[in-house]
Amino acid sequence: MPPEWSSSSPDLLLSVDRTSGRPLRAQLEHGLRDAIRTGRLEVGERLPSSRELARTLGLSRGLVQECYAQLLAEGYLVTRPGSATRVAAGSATASVAARPPAVAPRLVADFRCGVPDLGSFPVQDWVWAMREAARGMPTVEFDYGDPRGAAALREVLAGYVRRVRAAAAGPEHIVVCNGYAQGLGLALRTLADIGVQEVAFEDPGSPGTVTAAAGMAGMRAVPVPVDEHGIDVRALSATDARAVVVTPAHQWPTGVALAPERRLALLAWARDHDAFVIEDDYDAEFRYDREPVGALQGLEPHRVIGLGTVSKSLAPALRIGWMICPPHLTDALAEEKHRSDRGGPALDQHALAILIESGRFDRHLRRMRATYAARRTALLAAVAEHAPGLPVTGLAAGFHAVAHLPAHATEDEVIAAARTRAVGLYGMSSCRAGHTEAPAQLVLGFGNVSERGIAAGIAAIGDLLTRPLDDTPR
Amino acid sequence: MPPEWSSSSPDLLLSVDRTSGRPLRAQLEHGLRDAIRTGRLEVGERLPSSRELARTLGLSRGLVQECYAQLLAEGYLVTRPGSATRVAAGSATASVAARPPAVAPRLVADFRCGVPDLGSFPVQDWVWAMREAARGMPTVEFDYGDPRGAAALREVLAGYVRRVRAAAAGPEHIVVCNGYAQGLGLALRTLADIGVQEVAFEDPGSPGTVTAAAGMAGMRAVPVPVDEHGIDVRALSATDARAVVVTPAHQWPTGVALAPERRLALLAWARDHDAFVIEDDYDAEFRYDREPVGALQGLEPHRVIGLGTVSKSLAPALRIGWMICPPHLTDALAEEKHRSDRGGPALDQHALAILIESGRFDRHLRRMRATYAARRTALLAAVAEHAPGLPVTGLAAGFHAVAHLPAHATEDEVIAAARTRAVGLYGMSSCRAGHTEAPAQLVLGFGNVSERGIAAGIAAIGDLLTRPLDDTPR
Repeated sequence: MPPEWSSSSPDLLLSVDRTSGRPLRAQLEHGLRDAIRTGRLEVGERLPSSRELARTLGLSRGLVQECYAQLLAEGYLVTRPGSATRVAAGSATASVAARPPAVAPRLVADFRCGVPDLGSFPVQDWVWAMREAARGMPTVEFDYGDPRGAAALREVLAGYVRRVRAAAAGPEHIVVCNGYAQGLGLALRTLADIGVQEVAFEDPGSPGTVTAAAGMAGMRAVPVPVDEHGIDVRALSATDARAVVVTPAHQWPTGVALAPERRLALLAWARDHDAFVIEDDYDAEFRYDREPVGALQGLEPHRVIGLGTVSKSLAPALRIGWMICPPHLTDALAEEKHRSDRGGPALDQHALAILIESGRFDRHLRRMRATYAARRTALLAAVAEHAPGLPVTGLAAGFHAVAHLPAHATEDEVIAAARTRAVGLYGMSSCRAGHTEAPAQLVLGFGNVSERGIAAGIAAIGDLLTRPLDDTPR
Repeated sequence: MPPEWSSSSPDLLLSVDRTSGRPLRAQLEHGLRDAIRTGRLEVGERLPSSRELARTLGLSRGLVQECYAQLLAEGYLVTRPGSATRVAAGSATASVAARPPAVAPRLVADFRCGVPDLGSFPVQDWVWAMREAARGMPTVEFDYGDPRGAAALREVLAGYVRRVRAAAAGPEHIVVCNGYAQGLGLALRTLADIGVQEVAFEDPGSPGTVTAAAGMAGMRAVPVPVDEHGIDVRALSATDARAVVVTPAHQWPTGVALAPERRLALLAWARDHDAFVIEDDYDAEFRYDREPVGALQGLEPHRVIGLGTVSKSLAPALRIGWMICPPHLTDALAEEKHRSDRGGPALDQHALAILIESGRFDRHLRRMRATYAARRTALLAAVAEHAPGLPVTGLAAGFHAVAHLPAHATEDEVIAAARTRAVGLYGMSSCRAGHTEAPAQLVLGFGNVSERGIAAGIAAIGDLLTRPLDDTPR
């Protein structure tokens, strides 16, 4: 039988297609594997001889024999001397159902927090920096590298955090990581290794993130209240914690700055308790009223692990952050990073170094400061117009604010009512460690909402924010 | 006193430079912080009044007041009503000494393993793919994404592993990770969560990597011997392990392929013991004698976690790998990835998807197969010429081989002697779990050594490889 453009073996539901351009042997192998996996060929079933199948499909016998040998080697088939080739036991598998994609409804405004303006990511600058990085990176840096990250980036970051954050760090004590969450995990595991068994965190704050990271490190996590001056250091002292995760420059989510006397008290606590401060410097680049308060790390580099990230200044999708390490812990933190994933991607790190060095990063930050300042103004204007009297706090920096709902209002009801008007709101309760009788508050993220969106969003829900739901006409 | 180009306060060793272009306030702040950190300004020391310092430096008093306010806020300074401003306690820090950089001597040839040809990284193709990725990526993907990784890459990888590795995976069951080490860690932590307490690994193999990852997951790790057919499944059955890490396609480091009957026995073991196989498919793309043996994962997707990586096919520095997950474990593995670092960098993932989709990845692999095949030939030729009779095995795939040293030779002595001739050699003993009376062997990596380097390197040490050191003239 002469080969045709396409031929098939009806018994096995196998076919080969000579017009596809795919090698015939590959087609046959894949066809056989599929038939076995889907159960069309059952366990123990006898396959046709290579001669038979070759004739049926118009292939050479050698090609079919190669296929059988391959599938024998892979364990799909079994054979015994003098016996037919059969489907091996355990080679069939159930097909795997796909999950339906989640469909998010389109919102007028989504005041989700922690997201910068994604549309402002400097695509051209990043592509430029990547090209420069790829062309300029020494060949040896395509290998596994220093687990602390590319030396070029650590050098640039050391200068950057010194200049912008008043941090005190040489490049040798910076460990580049994949963002805040990884840095926190590495820090807690390192501290656990030196005997720290309990870590405190701010309440309200990020109870889920810290508790999960503490759990992975085998540590307990304990909340400590935050008031209008930041974390309550006296309450911290009353715990057994020898580590604390704080956001001194712009407390997440209340937005207060840690008061000067509290800063000193916190560092004194660390010294007195042989304890460590993990400083989350998440949005320090964006402050509106004055220069940002310098990092705590600069005051006490031996007791503070400084965590920085580009998730707010550039985009979360880059997954680049850094740890400023106490000198005596740097090796241990680098070792944790190595054990965790052997270090981060070198090209991305070189690109970020080039972006900062070139001044394009600073230019981007200046542009974004103006963008967020305008959105902040828009938010205040919209609240003044559509929710007059609503107290809004925490706006000295960053791109979120706290709205204080009236007495008797509940977060859940306001959020649900806003959702029916296509506005995404988020409650403070998800930032709280316990379900105490806390006042109802919303955390309004405006980093990724346009001025127009802010105005429209607040206009749509202003009434919900200023009076108890029961009085709201439905 | 009129402002001059540069002025200084000799008491404080402070100066400002009007020609530098840096804001005067920033200069003064940084100068004060430095003076405090380095101890030039001591704890408790009184600062000059803002009026005094302004006059000395030729600055406005308001500017000095702003500086002091900033450093008060940061905790470098303290003040009490009616009292002078002083340096705060705990604000001084010891300076941090830099570690001297390690200098590696230049070698004639370095037969280190696990490194592909770094100079062949397709820089132009990668830059092109990055540009396409950055321009084409939807804005929303600059946000935190699916912890499993970009859908576009998972889609492409599912097709790739099906086509090239005979794996059975839909994109919904792939989790992109930062390379093998992270994937292994995520897999072990996930298995620990469902009650697996002991993981077996191949001996010889990667005892350090598996033991470290097991330790982080709170698991015991136990070695199981490898013979010429791969891992000894009978010995595996005798352990309490309910997970095993294997390299079936090309055992690391012996280079044997897991024999067909062992493949089936291993899967039967997994079924019988409710156990899991972690399949490290590290260099499956490079096989010289025939098509690579398909992945075990395709035979038993519910019991095999498949780990792939581009560290060998492109470059370690990209830090991209993937896990093919058993459907019932996908959510848990994705959750571990999320807890670990919130997912990998999206642009890199899109770039890899584009590289594979465009056919440029396959083209690169074809080129590299030819490169490594030529190096393999060069190695065999050099051994035949300079170390005749030296048994070399494990060369059916990948870019390393095992050289079997003569009786009485010791790995350490051969390695040390080679080092004096500027040739880097590596012993099998570092791949062994125990220090048993194992034969002396070298693992020769030739992925990142040119043909010329291979020839020169083997020529320089051939005599060391074929007779006991005692007979070597010194």
